[in-house]
Amino acid sequence: MTPVDPVDLTAQLVRCPSITPEEGGALVLLEDLLSSAGFECTQVDRNGTSNLFARWGRKGANRSFGFNGHTDVVPLGDENAWTVDPFGAEIKDGFLWGRGSTDMKSGVAAFTAAAIDFVRDTPPDGAVILTITGDEEGDATDGTVALLDWMEAQGEVMTHCLVGEPTSPNHMGEAMKIGRRGSMNVWFTFTGVQGHSAYPHRANNPLTAMARLMDTLASHELDAGNDHFDPSNFAIVTMDTGNPATNVIPAQCRAAVNIRFNDHHSGSSLTEWIDREVAKVVGDTGIRIETKVKISGESFITPPGELSDLIARAVKAETGQTPEMSTSGGTSDARFMKSHCPVAEFGLVGKTMHQVDEKVPVADIIQLKAIYARMLADYFA
Amino acid sequence: MTPVDPVDLTAQLVRCPSITPEEGGALVLLEDLLSSAGFECTQVDRNGTSNLFARWGRKGANRSFGFNGHTDVVPLGDENAWTVDPFGAEIKDGFLWGRGSTDMKSGVAAFTAAAIDFVRDTPPDGAVILTITGDEEGDATDGTVALLDWMEAQGEVMTHCLVGEPTSPNHMGEAMKIGRRGSMNVWFTFTGVQGHSAYPHRANNPLTAMARLMDTLASHELDAGNDHFDPSNFAIVTMDTGNPATNVIPAQCRAAVNIRFNDHHSGSSLTEWIDREVAKVVGDTGIRIETKVKISGESFITPPGELSDLIARAVKAETGQTPEMSTSGGTSDARFMKSHCPVAEFGLVGKTMHQVDEKVPVADIIQLKAIYARMLADYFA
Repeated sequence: MTPVDPVDLTAQLVRCPSITPEEGGALVLLEDLLSSAGFECTQVDRNGTSNLFARWGRKGANRSFGFNGHTDVVPLGDENAWTVDPFGAEIKDGFLWGRGSTDMKSGVAAFTAAAIDFVRDTPPDGAVILTITGDEEGDATDGTVALLDWMEAQGEVMTHCLVGEPTSPNHMGEAMKIGRRGSMNVWFTFTGVQGHSAYPHRANNPLTAMARLMDTLASHELDAGNDHFDPSNFAIVTMDTGNPATNVIPAQCRAAVNIRFNDHHSGSSLTEWIDREVAKVVGDTGIRIETKVKISGESFITPPGELSDLIARAVKAETGQTPEMSTSGGTSDARFMKSHCPVAEFGLVGKTMHQVDEKVPVADIIQLKAIYARMLADYFA
Repeated sequence: MTPVDPVDLTAQLVRCPSITPEEGGALVLLEDLLSSAGFECTQVDRNGTSNLFARWGRKGANRSFGFNGHTDVVPLGDENAWTVDPFGAEIKDGFLWGRGSTDMKSGVAAFTAAAIDFVRDTPPDGAVILTITGDEEGDATDGTVALLDWMEAQGEVMTHCLVGEPTSPNHMGEAMKIGRRGSMNVWFTFTGVQGHSAYPHRANNPLTAMARLMDTLASHELDAGNDHFDPSNFAIVTMDTGNPATNVIPAQCRAAVNIRFNDHHSGSSLTEWIDREVAKVVGDTGIRIETKVKISGESFITPPGELSDLIARAVKAETGQTPEMSTSGGTSDARFMKSHCPVAEFGLVGKTMHQVDEKVPVADIIQLKAIYARMLADYFA
C-alpha cells in the first residue's frame, strides 16, 4: 500500500479552521483516517471541546508507545498582514504556508503518517496510541487533561509518550525537551495610609514596603541551576501606583511577578518563601499586603534514559546531529502527560509559531515523519 | 484718631477676588490706606504680577521692622460646595467667611492695622516696612522675590521680618515658625531591554533596578533631626510601569520621590547622594537611569534669639501661652526672606486654609492685631 503522505495530510489539516476551541473538521478527518487504518478511535469530549484517542493493538500492552499533539491553532492576529490565505495550505518556495503549519498540524500529520505506515508494514508486539487534543492553545483544561482522565477511567496506558511540539530554535534536530520549568505568577496589593509628604508621620507609605519586598525577592538567588535546568528566574513584571502628585503619599500600590522555576522548587515551596518575606515586611512596616498566587505549571523532568536515547538515535540517524536535551521555553501539554508516563518532546523548528505568515519547510515535514518512524521501529525492535 | 479695624479691613480684602495672579483690587486698597497714613508706597510689578512695598520712617534706619504677607488666594475648588459667597466676607456665628479669610488676608489686615496705629500714636525711632505680594500661592517667582530684588537695587533694608502666615495647628498662640525644612523632588526613568519572562537572559529588567534603588534610598536614615528640626524624610510618591502582561519583562518604568530635609542637608548634597546610589545600581544592573531633580526650597533656620523672643513675649502677653518654635509644614515666602534678614512666622490657626468655606474667628483677627502691635512697641522700646 502507498505510504501516508505527511505533507498532504498537513495541508488537509491546515485547511480546517480550528482556532481554539473550534474543532474545524481536523479531528474528524484524523479519526476517519486512523479508523480505516485499524486504530480503535474514541472522541473524548468535555465541555464542548473535542479530543481524539486512537489505539492500534491491545489495551494494556506491556509496550504501548504514545504520541501527543494538538490540532487547535492560535488566532490569525492581524488578518490583513497575511500574504497568503491562512487556511489555504499553499505550497510555494519549498514551504507549506498557513496557521498551524508549524504549531503543530505538521507534527500531528508526521506522527499519524508514521504510525499508520508502521503498524501496517511491521505490526508490533504492543500498542501505538495517539492522543490528539483540540484545547492546547487555550486554557488547556478540557484537552490533554480530559484525555488522561478518560484513559485512567478506561484503564488505557501508555508506557512512554512523545509530544510532537516544535522544539528546535533554528535547525531540525538541534534539540529535544526532556522537561520544563514551572511557571507561577503572584499579584501583590500594598495598602497603607495616605497623607501629605510634608507630614510623613501621619501617613504610612505602601511604596516603601513595595520597594523593600520586591528588592528582597528579586535579590534572592533561588538556585544555581543543575545538569538539566537553567537557574530559576524571578522577574518583577510590573509595579504601579498612578499617583501624579509629588506632595501626596498614596494609600495603595500594586506589583506582579513571574517565576520560572526548576525542580529545586515547587509552586507551594515558592509560595511559602514569598509568604515568609511578606510577613517580615508587614512586621517591619505595618503595611497591609495582599497576595494572589496562580501556579500555571510545576517543573518536571524525565531524566535522560530510554526515551531520550530513543529520540537521540533517530534524530542522529536522520539529521546527522545529536539533539541537545533542553528544558527551556514555555509550557506544553507535556506538563500533564508527565504524571502518566515518561514524556519527552521532539518536533520542528519553532521560529514562525503564532506569527503572521506561519510556514513550515516541506522537507522538514518529510524528515520529521522519518524520525518518528525510526523511533517506532527502534522502540518495538 | 480711630484705630484701624482689622476685621473691617479683612472683610474689604476678602471682597477683592484676587485669585493668583489677579490683583483684584486688594493691593490698590492697601496702598491707598497706607499712603494716607504716611507710608511711602511703591508698586513693584514684574511680569504682570503686582506687589506692594510700603515704608514709614527713614530708609536705611538702624531698626527697620518688616512685615511680609500676600493678598493672592488659591482658587475656590468646588464652587457649588461653598455654603457662603466666597468673596462675600459674611460675618456669622463669630466667624468671617470667605476665600483668603485665613490664608492670609486677615494676617495682612492685622499687621497693616497694627502698623498704621503704631506709627501714628507712638512714632518710632526707625522704620516700619510692609512687603505685600500678589504671587505667593502660584509659582512665587514674581512676588516676594521681585520685592527683594527691587529692595536690593534701591538700598531698602529690613533688620528683622515677621511673615504673617497661619502658624498654629489648633489654637491661637500655639506655635511660631523659625525655619522650614527644604523640599525637593526627583523623577527617575529606568530603561532596560524588553523580553519574554521565560527567556530572562535575553532581557534586562528595569524593575529590578527600580526596586533596588528605591529600597536603598528609602532605607537610608538621612539624620535623626536636631533641636529645631524633625528628622529629614524621604518619601517614594509613585512607581509606575503599566505592563499588563505577566509573561513580558517591560523595557521601562518610572518612579518619583519627595524629600523634606532639615539643615543637615542641602538640595545639592542630597542630589550628590542620589547620584552616587544611582551609579551603583547602574553598575550592578546595566540599566540606564535618568533623573530629573527639582529643588523647591532649601531648609533654613533663624536660631532662637531676639526675633523669637519678641514674638514669644507678645504672644504670651495676649494669649497666656508660650508658642512652640516649629519648623514643620510646607514652604512659605520666609524661604526667600531669610537671605535678606532674620525671619520668623507667626499668624492664625491654619485649619481651614485652602478649603471650601474657609473662615476665621473674628476674635482671632482682633487678637492677632494686638500681638503684632505689642511686637512693634517692644521692638522699638
